[in-house]
Amino acid sequence: MYEGIIQELIDELGRLPGIGPKSAQRIAFHILQTETFDVTHLAEVLLEVKEKVRFCEICGNVSEQDTCNICRDPRRSATTICVVEEAKDVVAIERTREFRGLYHVLGGAISPIDGIGPDDLRIRQLLQRLADGTVTEVIIATDPNLEGEATATYLTRLLVQPGLRVTRLASGLPVGGDLEYADEVTLGRAFEGRRLVEQ
Amino acid sequence: MYEGIIQELIDELGRLPGIGPKSAQRIAFHILQTETFDVTHLAEVLLEVKEKVRFCEICGNVSEQDTCNICRDPRRSATTICVVEEAKDVVAIERTREFRGLYHVLGGAISPIDGIGPDDLRIRQLLQRLADGTVTEVIIATDPNLEGEATATYLTRLLVQPGLRVTRLASGLPVGGDLEYADEVTLGRAFEGRRLVEQ
Repeated sequence: MYEGIIQELIDELGRLPGIGPKSAQRIAFHILQTETFDVTHLAEVLLEVKEKVRFCEICGNVSEQDTCNICRDPRRSATTICVVEEAKDVVAIERTREFRGLYHVLGGAISPIDGIGPDDLRIRQLLQRLADGTVTEVIIATDPNLEGEATATYLTRLLVQPGLRVTRLASGLPVGGDLEYADEVTLGRAFEGRRLVEQ
Repeated sequence: MYEGIIQELIDELGRLPGIGPKSAQRIAFHILQTETFDVTHLAEVLLEVKEKVRFCEICGNVSEQDTCNICRDPRRSATTICVVEEAKDVVAIERTREFRGLYHVLGGAISPIDGIGPDDLRIRQLLQRLADGTVTEVIIATDPNLEGEATATYLTRLLVQPGLRVTRLASGLPVGGDLEYADEVTLGRAFEGRRLVEQ
């Protein structure tokens, strides 16, 4: 154990995902001993993030304004919505430059084991966006794992209606993984080869 | 790329040791999305650490006062000094409960490849602590790797003088590793079995 505040820093760092006690200690000493490391700046950025960042009122993506950059961009096609689990997935898909439509971030996936049901996701907001008939295609891009597949199946059944194509990303994504870890080429191909869901 | 401040947070987190771009992103979103995560507290602790923590004037260990808890503790034996590379090593050795003397933190090891020579370490301060003859044993506990061995050899030659035992931790530490990663038992045995250096 360290004296007071150092141990507190190690404890706080250890709460972050993927950081164990040894990593937390290593990071704490890096912060302490590296003169070039600007800890004040990190602290300011942390506070600024919590103050500034909110979620887009339309799609649920992270944003510094009421609506996100993508929803505000008039060059994006308003007829296609790509449904993803997390804001991280939006960035992964944007990196492929394959998709020029809009997004809808669910905020997770259906997972009975974690107590997450359809009502905990932004599904109602998705249905509202589809109500006026502008959108002609919904691409379901949930993670290719158990929860993602369950969510995709649930959404597919819910969304079936005349005039709306519901598609899924092509297989090509490694099964059991997280969408955010797919490389650009794989994810890009999955977009190209997306298939119409059997209805 | 994310909008403004989120990307800035990801960049800042990515500067920390052992955190790559994917981990930085994961941590940033954890901070953003987890309502129970108290980002203000983390920011405050970071600032407080930089403000409060300094290095013990005697041994070079981290401390919130001019001298550290160990140097101030009258129950510690003042006749033995254990020389380590980093403050992290003090904590690792304290955990074994094998050692009741004092420490001296060098602030690194001799490493020509990194441009670190004897003058960059707190060796002069160590010699000053030995000047009055109180200390009868110096235990050299540098890391069991190339730089640590070089530092130990250099110190051994420098410290040879009548009335002073210079010892090294027993082998038992895995060669090529970092002292801070040794488990308590191994490190404790290495203390018990420390050997007198051939002079």
